[in-house]
Amino acid sequence: MGNPVAKGLRVGAADALSLNRWWGPVSSPTVPLIVQKFGGTSVANAERIHRAARRAIRAKLEGKQVVLVVSAMGHTTDELLKLAGEVSADPPKRELDMLLTTGEQVSIALMAMAIHAAGHEAISLTGAQLGLLTDSVHTRARIQRISRERIDRELAAGRIVIVAGFQGIDAGGEITTLGRGASDTTAAALASVLGAEICEIYTDVDGVYTTDPRLVPQARKIDRISYDTMLEMAAAGAAVMHSRAIEFGKKYRVPIHVRSSLTDAPGTLIMTETKGMEDAAVQGVTLKQDLASITLAGVPNRPGMAARIFSAIAAKNVLVDDIVQNVYDDGRQANLTFSVSAADLAEAKRICADLVREMNLSGMSVDDGVAKVSAIGVGMRTASGVASTMFSALAEGGVNIHNISTSEIVLSCLVRREDGPRALQLVHDAFGLHVAP
Amino acid sequence: MGNPVAKGLRVGAADALSLNRWWGPVSSPTVPLIVQKFGGTSVANAERIHRAARRAIRAKLEGKQVVLVVSAMGHTTDELLKLAGEVSADPPKRELDMLLTTGEQVSIALMAMAIHAAGHEAISLTGAQLGLLTDSVHTRARIQRISRERIDRELAAGRIVIVAGFQGIDAGGEITTLGRGASDTTAAALASVLGAEICEIYTDVDGVYTTDPRLVPQARKIDRISYDTMLEMAAAGAAVMHSRAIEFGKKYRVPIHVRSSLTDAPGTLIMTETKGMEDAAVQGVTLKQDLASITLAGVPNRPGMAARIFSAIAAKNVLVDDIVQNVYDDGRQANLTFSVSAADLAEAKRICADLVREMNLSGMSVDDGVAKVSAIGVGMRTASGVASTMFSALAEGGVNIHNISTSEIVLSCLVRREDGPRALQLVHDAFGLHVAP
Repeated sequence: MGNPVAKGLRVGAADALSLNRWWGPVSSPTVPLIVQKFGGTSVANAERIHRAARRAIRAKLEGKQVVLVVSAMGHTTDELLKLAGEVSADPPKRELDMLLTTGEQVSIALMAMAIHAAGHEAISLTGAQLGLLTDSVHTRARIQRISRERIDRELAAGRIVIVAGFQGIDAGGEITTLGRGASDTTAAALASVLGAEICEIYTDVDGVYTTDPRLVPQARKIDRISYDTMLEMAAAGAAVMHSRAIEFGKKYRVPIHVRSSLTDAPGTLIMTETKGMEDAAVQGVTLKQDLASITLAGVPNRPGMAARIFSAIAAKNVLVDDIVQNVYDDGRQANLTFSVSAADLAEAKRICADLVREMNLSGMSVDDGVAKVSAIGVGMRTASGVASTMFSALAEGGVNIHNISTSEIVLSCLVRREDGPRALQLVHDAFGLHVAP
Repeated sequence: MGNPVAKGLRVGAADALSLNRWWGPVSSPTVPLIVQKFGGTSVANAERIHRAARRAIRAKLEGKQVVLVVSAMGHTTDELLKLAGEVSADPPKRELDMLLTTGEQVSIALMAMAIHAAGHEAISLTGAQLGLLTDSVHTRARIQRISRERIDRELAAGRIVIVAGFQGIDAGGEITTLGRGASDTTAAALASVLGAEICEIYTDVDGVYTTDPRLVPQARKIDRISYDTMLEMAAAGAAVMHSRAIEFGKKYRVPIHVRSSLTDAPGTLIMTETKGMEDAAVQGVTLKQDLASITLAGVPNRPGMAARIFSAIAAKNVLVDDIVQNVYDDGRQANLTFSVSAADLAEAKRICADLVREMNLSGMSVDDGVAKVSAIGVGMRTASGVASTMFSALAEGGVNIHNISTSEIVLSCLVRREDGPRALQLVHDAFGLHVAP
């Protein structure tokens, strides 16, 4: 027990980016442990809370230790944001966190009551009570450490432990939040720290789909998907799960089961890559709408130029999507294009205007109406012809491609925003994703 | 600064009953400090929150340090209780506290946003962040200690400090609440600890009235009232303020100003007794409805009998209102009558049935439909004829009196519940309370 991991797990300052700095691995508990996370729609009213409570109790009766992570009920978070908007156009982020964390606190209390009402022992814990330590970046804090002490004590007492998702505290005792949708992250981080056999994410869809079923009716549920493919799909716009949650699962090899809270049907298992998974070159296609792209022209092609530009952007907390650079002028200058969310465009333009002046660039051009279609799959590593299939499909459908970017398992094209949904359908069809592999 | 009071103030286990165990007195701050408490109706929506924020800012601009104590918005607490009721018929009290404290947390965050929006510095603090330590009796915890450390630091930084009323934490970090309406207690306790020049209680009425204006239209606002009279009025049913808040004010001589949040008109000042206050024998009359009375017959008139009975009742957390005892049988036996709230009657009956058996009493009788009319005033100490005025008024109005009890500044009569409102009117008229003294 001299191992610090026995008491908790340290995470680097940026939990998503420095998982390799964790103090892992974690020893498995002697009693199998399961983490179940219930999203907002799964706890939207008393009847659904009871339904979720029954699932937890069932797992307990099967001999497992059970930790629940619960989101705010239904549209609570949006309603609280609306209240804040009525009071202030630009509320301090610390106070936003103070406000928003009440949503999960309500849910955990009600969940504990529901389990008690069914005759079982349960206890609710806020992020502060659990000891979920984060940095101090309000509204987008990163997990630094999760204490096992309290949770172990409650589990040992035979209780179902109910943890408020999305929230933590910093070293000064300030209440922080991990970003919208980050209850998934809380669940996966807890599953990692506690050595859970599985992390179940209960939601209002029945799994991960090959693409957004609202845009492509032929979208098909995926039974098993690797952490890497899921990570790329989330990064490329699939809204079903938080990337940081998947990274926790990947690092600690905790399988994540995304499934419906309304049925017992299996959903999608996010897990370590296995042989069969690689059969299909492309497993999913995604669409990221509401992007904008900025091109900086005449960037001197010298070491450190890109670093200087993106450091300036990162310093203002603007998230950059894809980056594409082409050199010209015999390799002496480059055009550098990157995309950001449309919401960040104004800030990004201000930063770039400064850079153009300070670095004496030739200029900047902005396209504020683009979308990104991506094809994703670990099988892409070994399959050929993926790019030509995608480009041909878009060309035959009359969709013009602006920028192209690729990574090991992702192929992305920027298109006009209004072409986005059609492009998604074309690519989904081209890879035959409506048919099970 | 070696004085522990500089860091905080210890309160005995029962904050209301053992104020003399405090580590007082508290040194006055160099900058005048004011505590303003806003009740639920005073923060019911964004517009009212801004109005409250403006009051706080005005005090700040007048050169004062300002501490706000805020209740949950409007009917939030009732709505949360309704939610709990939908989930469980008998929710664990710990989880009720977890649930209910979210109401105040929402209010303090919004209040901080409103003050920021008006261009001033503010910070919200939960009970835990403030360091308001209580015992562990969930839903009716008592304050044990209030740490000054955090609040002093924030005030020194020039911030308006906004504290969540009604809540605290126990030594184990569990979230507790001080009982319904106890945001007043939080405010008065803070005013005491911080050596405030005044504790302002903003509410939806414009002060303390001679009686309940909904029952007696001639009720008149009282300009100044002593702590003692106010304490007795609160104990006898005046709902305007929490007794424990008044006790804090009395002990530390912090004037409490009960006033409307909608106007600038002065309300009622609760303060140390002064000469002019004693002119009227009776300052207010109150009605406590929904009482029940239990009579134990044939109690042996020996030392320790009453102690045994009321210890058994207190052990079950049943609050006893008045107690009346008459001896008979040449002083060998007594009849003991006490009243409890109708809600506690079932529990009280169970306890008394056990006592009748264990102590071999002659029997028990129950009246579940009584109300108590009380006349209160410090002037009663020196005035004569108060009792005869009250009894005559009731007799002439045809109201039968069940039990009579008196203390130094209170005269109470139990009457049939349906006679209550009329009895109140009769007594208010008899003492001429509609006319300013």
